[in-house]
Amino acid sequence: MKASLVLFLSMAAVLPVSAKIVTRAVPYEQGGVKLEGWLAYDDAKATPAHPAPGVLVIPEWWGLNDYPKGRAEQLAALGYVAFAADRFGAGVVTTDPKQAGELAGQFYGKPLMADRARAGLDQLLKSGRVDASRVAAIGYCFGGATVQALAFSGAPLAGIVSFHGSLIAPSAEAATGTRAKLLICQGAVDPFIPKEQVDAFLKALNDGKLDFQFVSYAGAIHAFTNLKADDMARRAGLNGIGYNAAADRRSWEHMRSFFAEIFAVKP
Amino acid sequence: MKASLVLFLSMAAVLPVSAKIVTRAVPYEQGGVKLEGWLAYDDAKATPAHPAPGVLVIPEWWGLNDYPKGRAEQLAALGYVAFAADRFGAGVVTTDPKQAGELAGQFYGKPLMADRARAGLDQLLKSGRVDASRVAAIGYCFGGATVQALAFSGAPLAGIVSFHGSLIAPSAEAATGTRAKLLICQGAVDPFIPKEQVDAFLKALNDGKLDFQFVSYAGAIHAFTNLKADDMARRAGLNGIGYNAAADRRSWEHMRSFFAEIFAVKP
Repeated sequence: MKASLVLFLSMAAVLPVSAKIVTRAVPYEQGGVKLEGWLAYDDAKATPAHPAPGVLVIPEWWGLNDYPKGRAEQLAALGYVAFAADRFGAGVVTTDPKQAGELAGQFYGKPLMADRARAGLDQLLKSGRVDASRVAAIGYCFGGATVQALAFSGAPLAGIVSFHGSLIAPSAEAATGTRAKLLICQGAVDPFIPKEQVDAFLKALNDGKLDFQFVSYAGAIHAFTNLKADDMARRAGLNGIGYNAAADRRSWEHMRSFFAEIFAVKP
Repeated sequence: MKASLVLFLSMAAVLPVSAKIVTRAVPYEQGGVKLEGWLAYDDAKATPAHPAPGVLVIPEWWGLNDYPKGRAEQLAALGYVAFAADRFGAGVVTTDPKQAGELAGQFYGKPLMADRARAGLDQLLKSGRVDASRVAAIGYCFGGATVQALAFSGAPLAGIVSFHGSLIAPSAEAATGTRAKLLICQGAVDPFIPKEQVDAFLKALNDGKLDFQFVSYAGAIHAFTNLKADDMARRAGLNGIGYNAAADRRSWEHMRSFFAEIFAVKP
């Protein structure tokens, strides 16, 4: 073998394959509402011939703004096919907590919460690049609550990750039907999540014998993964939300190791 | 450059260096008690010229049996210098919960708890292969409580990991003097750790603004990392302790990612 070829081969083993992150808006519909999600994948790592694990991304109550789209692109860079779902309608985003609360309020406690997320999951699977046996959902704040509701609806997910989500205690029946493993990442001093909510949630998970990991991150308040949280809090006059770099980095690492586990073996 | 040399260099970058895990018993003394710990390192990864991060390992209340020695060897395989400390006296181990309770009972609530662990830390540093700016302590059950006490005594540790430890709420003064970051790994249904203990612990960590991560693992009871826990429980007629493979694997991974963070940069 020629030296140049050996050198090329040895470098090829070390350097990443030149890859391109592909993103595109995907229109879809659920319950008569026109929606538009955001698909992201690395076209060298996820192909129709070699499908990759898929990750559904559910936004905060602000709607499908740049934050969940950026997360989808980060997930694509890790080799996953990611779909950031829409729940409010194509282009509906807000920075007003009152409007956000009204938008999110349509979903809490109703089957629509899981149903609309499920429509996003269907779009992820329709990408043609996803291994349907290896799919997870992650969500932020209201989106964290949504992926819990999706899991408790019995959706075919290997796992969910909830970041600073409101906590939904599943009924015994919902727990029985749950297939997903749960990674719950919470700020230790999140003023939006009362201790009673945490206690009731953990009790329901324990009673239902669900497979979960619950992580509490020191010093973190609501929205701790969102770099723009401080800015949004200031502009909206909203207390109790803010970025926390350590909790963001740690919870992302915990998500990665969770994915390594749940995507390791095909069922 | 000759092809053979290139080939050699490219392989050297990929294949691990042939390494040897060195272990040896280390006699030492504290408070008039003759102790004997267990040192483990990879002599290719931790040398006097290139010291490695160090990890102190504090055993369960059974004493320095094969379990903590095995953990020290696992840590050595990861490239750390590990020292499994003795607290009860050279060769003092038991499988009798009553005797274990008496042995451990000498330490709880007393400065001796941190002092004796500190003597083990000194031995770790004296190995001559440890980067003193990158040292952590891990502990199991009573050893988990001990590494908390060591951290709260102000010991020069980058971090501690407590596995299924009793939880010691630090005083405000102790919290102020604490330098270590904390990773606390608990079984979600550990009957040895009352909920009031968890609540008081987390409150003290939050009030003291300590840097912690608290992880609760589904379905795990006391001693969940110890493969022999079921056997020991049966033989001792002890309820509430048992191995949990998922919680063991996950907490070990969380420890590894915690070490990657706290050992990443030299202060």
